[in-house]
Amino acid sequence: MTKILIVGGVAGGASAAARARRLSEDAQIIMFERGPFVSFANCGLPYHIGGDITDRSKLLLQTPESFLARFNVDVRVMNEVVSIDRQTKTATIRNLIDNSEYTENYDFLLLSPGAGPIVPPIPGVENPLTHSLRNIPDMDRILNTIETNNVEHATVVGGGFIGLEMMEAFQQRGIKTTLLELADQVMTPVDREMAGFAHAEIREHGVDLQLGVALSAVEYIAETHLADVNSGESTEHQHINGHLQLSLSNGTSLNTDLLIMAIGVRPETKLASEAGLKIGELGGIWTTPTMQTSDPSIYAVGDAIEEADFVTGNQTMVPLAGPANRQGRMAADNMLGRNQSYQGTQGTAICKIFDLAIASTGKNEKQLKRDGVEFEKVYVHTASHASYYPGAEIVSFKLLFDPRTGAILGAQAAGKDGVDKRIDIIAVAQRAGMTVEQLQHLELTYAPPYGSAKDVINQAAFVANNIINGDATAIHFDEIDNLTEDQLLLDVRNPGELENGGFIEGAVNIPVDQLRQRLDELPKDKEIIIYCQVGLRGNVAYRQLVNNGFKARNLIGGYRTYKFANV
Amino acid sequence: MTKILIVGGVAGGASAAARARRLSEDAQIIMFERGPFVSFANCGLPYHIGGDITDRSKLLLQTPESFLARFNVDVRVMNEVVSIDRQTKTATIRNLIDNSEYTENYDFLLLSPGAGPIVPPIPGVENPLTHSLRNIPDMDRILNTIETNNVEHATVVGGGFIGLEMMEAFQQRGIKTTLLELADQVMTPVDREMAGFAHAEIREHGVDLQLGVALSAVEYIAETHLADVNSGESTEHQHINGHLQLSLSNGTSLNTDLLIMAIGVRPETKLASEAGLKIGELGGIWTTPTMQTSDPSIYAVGDAIEEADFVTGNQTMVPLAGPANRQGRMAADNMLGRNQSYQGTQGTAICKIFDLAIASTGKNEKQLKRDGVEFEKVYVHTASHASYYPGAEIVSFKLLFDPRTGAILGAQAAGKDGVDKRIDIIAVAQRAGMTVEQLQHLELTYAPPYGSAKDVINQAAFVANNIINGDATAIHFDEIDNLTEDQLLLDVRNPGELENGGFIEGAVNIPVDQLRQRLDELPKDKEIIIYCQVGLRGNVAYRQLVNNGFKARNLIGGYRTYKFANV
Repeated sequence: MTKILIVGGVAGGASAAARARRLSEDAQIIMFERGPFVSFANCGLPYHIGGDITDRSKLLLQTPESFLARFNVDVRVMNEVVSIDRQTKTATIRNLIDNSEYTENYDFLLLSPGAGPIVPPIPGVENPLTHSLRNIPDMDRILNTIETNNVEHATVVGGGFIGLEMMEAFQQRGIKTTLLELADQVMTPVDREMAGFAHAEIREHGVDLQLGVALSAVEYIAETHLADVNSGESTEHQHINGHLQLSLSNGTSLNTDLLIMAIGVRPETKLASEAGLKIGELGGIWTTPTMQTSDPSIYAVGDAIEEADFVTGNQTMVPLAGPANRQGRMAADNMLGRNQSYQGTQGTAICKIFDLAIASTGKNEKQLKRDGVEFEKVYVHTASHASYYPGAEIVSFKLLFDPRTGAILGAQAAGKDGVDKRIDIIAVAQRAGMTVEQLQHLELTYAPPYGSAKDVINQAAFVANNIINGDATAIHFDEIDNLTEDQLLLDVRNPGELENGGFIEGAVNIPVDQLRQRLDELPKDKEIIIYCQVGLRGNVAYRQLVNNGFKARNLIGGYRTYKFANV
Repeated sequence: MTKILIVGGVAGGASAAARARRLSEDAQIIMFERGPFVSFANCGLPYHIGGDITDRSKLLLQTPESFLARFNVDVRVMNEVVSIDRQTKTATIRNLIDNSEYTENYDFLLLSPGAGPIVPPIPGVENPLTHSLRNIPDMDRILNTIETNNVEHATVVGGGFIGLEMMEAFQQRGIKTTLLELADQVMTPVDREMAGFAHAEIREHGVDLQLGVALSAVEYIAETHLADVNSGESTEHQHINGHLQLSLSNGTSLNTDLLIMAIGVRPETKLASEAGLKIGELGGIWTTPTMQTSDPSIYAVGDAIEEADFVTGNQTMVPLAGPANRQGRMAADNMLGRNQSYQGTQGTAICKIFDLAIASTGKNEKQLKRDGVEFEKVYVHTASHASYYPGAEIVSFKLLFDPRTGAILGAQAAGKDGVDKRIDIIAVAQRAGMTVEQLQHLELTYAPPYGSAKDVINQAAFVANNIINGDATAIHFDEIDNLTEDQLLLDVRNPGELENGGFIEGAVNIPVDQLRQRLDELPKDKEIIIYCQVGLRGNVAYRQLVNNGFKARNLIGGYRTYKFANV
């Protein structure tokens, strides 16, 4: 009989427990969770705060009782594994209710402790109105603050997934919100110019977005509401009344009623490192592709570990639910005699920001530059389905690839429809080792309500292959503001588009449909830098000019890419 | 200077013309279209009839004038190429306005004539109230009939894409509709049991769906409305007043005000065969992977051709817009010196049926059986995104694969959300040569509004691999009604589900969460046939029974697959 101890009862741990039982009826499985809940929907917490998920109980996917009934797993909530003795294969557990301690031996132990929010040592940050969001009790505390502190303004520090979701949750509840982000962009998995679409959406919804701004200090100003005292509310509720005065790195200050710290997470490695397990170079628990730690009897999965990146093979940490679940299942397989290898994490991710979806897979440009990987990139902005059918929205899509081999390196997309689908397509193609040449031939579902005969992905592949084959000479948005005397900027859109949508200073305007008749207006001794709205007409003009003996380059992704890069 | 003649100015022809010009500024390009319009949105026609696309002009993507201005293509509408002399490389063209004829020589000729609706020789089918839908004039005639004939009831013959879209269009306009289909299912790209979801949706919307019924005869009963005569409408409008009496193969008859024939299309091969070009075994124009016909100077693309199937390599005809567009682009490449090869057609397709999407890619079970290909299949019914987040809908998904190699053979899906995405994922994975083993590891976008940590695709892959690895023994819906005395049917759902949702006759009910305590109620000498709602709890029960020494099989896809197979 195999005895398995599982540390942590959410995504990875719960998946492992269920899978282990399906594989073995007689294994003894004990799952320890130091919190009061197991298998809760941690990704759903912001949506309950925002009101999209009205029923709190929907977040509780399993209970200790349901786990026992279905999977015969001994689930012990409010029980924290405090140490592991690897020599005797014994864990010491503290019962957090009575503070008693006891031990359990194991054949295999699985570490699935997750990652905790990073709260930097900012003066005054420890106060009753400042919260992080990791679990159900955190969520309840935030809701309690909203209900009892008459929150009219909230501040979120950090523009990652949780920060963005909390920002939306507050705004949706009618709470005026400030989002502070130290970097020059939110949503770091995408590159700066793609984050521009998020910035526009955030500001359009009335959020006070402050980029490049850090929180320097917090002052808690307590208030006692007479009304509360009179109504006989509990002392605890009175204590959290008040507001915060935030000092920001740009010298300004800000009054707020509620502060969320969401600058990032740090893997929970205390138990592992105290047990002498190897910690990786990034600070996560080191694991093999079989999900084993440096001790073959101890496995680790989820947000606490680091692993090999799918694209580069370098160490990476990807605190996401999908990998955690699959790793948990795989660890159970291997503990019970299977031989499964984890295939690496691409970091596929998506975030809803009001009506916008923004998503990515693989490596972004920042990472590729840092790692010294040679790349080329293209942008397309294409309708999510046939543009003549109602409901089509522009998908803004960036594809990164190796210009020599055509290998897919990564992709990013933003838009109000069909963004998840396009990133999923690239996630599959990249994992399968397809090239951008092969992406041209993808045969995707098409009917007017769902797609286009030439999908976003086909179009991006056409542009990429034009560059690879020498049929297009690209110029990118970040080169446009530094043109020389030997270059001439040509806007091939219709005059009305320039008037209504803006244009790049210094451009000459000849609409593409008049170009063939007006070639004599252009110099042959300069390089013509062509742009249109999204790059399509620009390519038609580029081909015309080049085939007529001009030197030319086309702005990939057109004015739309240039414009949103500066939002 | 290369001179290119293009026969047909819609999807494939228009794509080829635009691409040819981008590659060569000095090629002479003439595009002939016997109809009055080029480059119209033929896939949008039913949606204009139904009212989703209100503005007719949105269907006209390009005009001869816009094609000339942008691409310097000489577009000649109402000009039909009537013969080709391959020896002299000359085409004869008839101007359909004045019936004059003239010739043009060519270096390359592209055939993109499309496919025409099949109208079988049913007695009386030639009448003013019977229409097909292929182009803008057809659409205008249908709309004219609706407007002038006081259409209260319409009949559609044929449950393919156009038939289904026309059915929805009529129903959406408040016209009571009968859909007649000779086969036992609509939407033949999917298998019978998956079509059940379509049948349910169609009937739920009040359509009179008659399966296994053919149209035998039509009688046109003309009427002259006094109102029309008085109002001074044109004679033409008066003529089409009346109704039709339809005789059906089941002996019944039906009065209707408008009849649409949509039983299928036949490739337009007259011009090709009269020119002595090779016609393939299926009756389409024979082509090489470079899109050349048996005459290397003549290319052919789109609905008129047959080509090699991506999965089997057999000849196939796939009259869809996506392949036509990409083939047109490729033909232009090759005419102008490139060397592109078409990579085969998977037949990826999708259809909107009211709120339901139904889609497929690769081979279906009917085709695999016909071709003698060994296969296994799995069904999952899983939420389109996290079930606790609003708007989640069940995706019913079927995956066909080779049980020895794990190769993906095809997939089908039906549901109200996320169907296109899942079929696209499989279309990419299949094209890339991935196995169902690899599908387990796919890392797809996940946030509660968009997906699940274990996506539909991951889950289907888990089930498929359980079967391949011997961790699951499958039974399928079509075997359930033929159990023997040595088998016992076990329903592991909760009693309330049986009461409210139905169950399979003869089943014993033990909820999965009680099973471990009630194993002694089950016989060890019989094979236990387990089912639940979708197959997930069934698998938990299956593992429990097998690990406790029982013989068992689990109904893949559960009661939901069984139930809809019979709709």
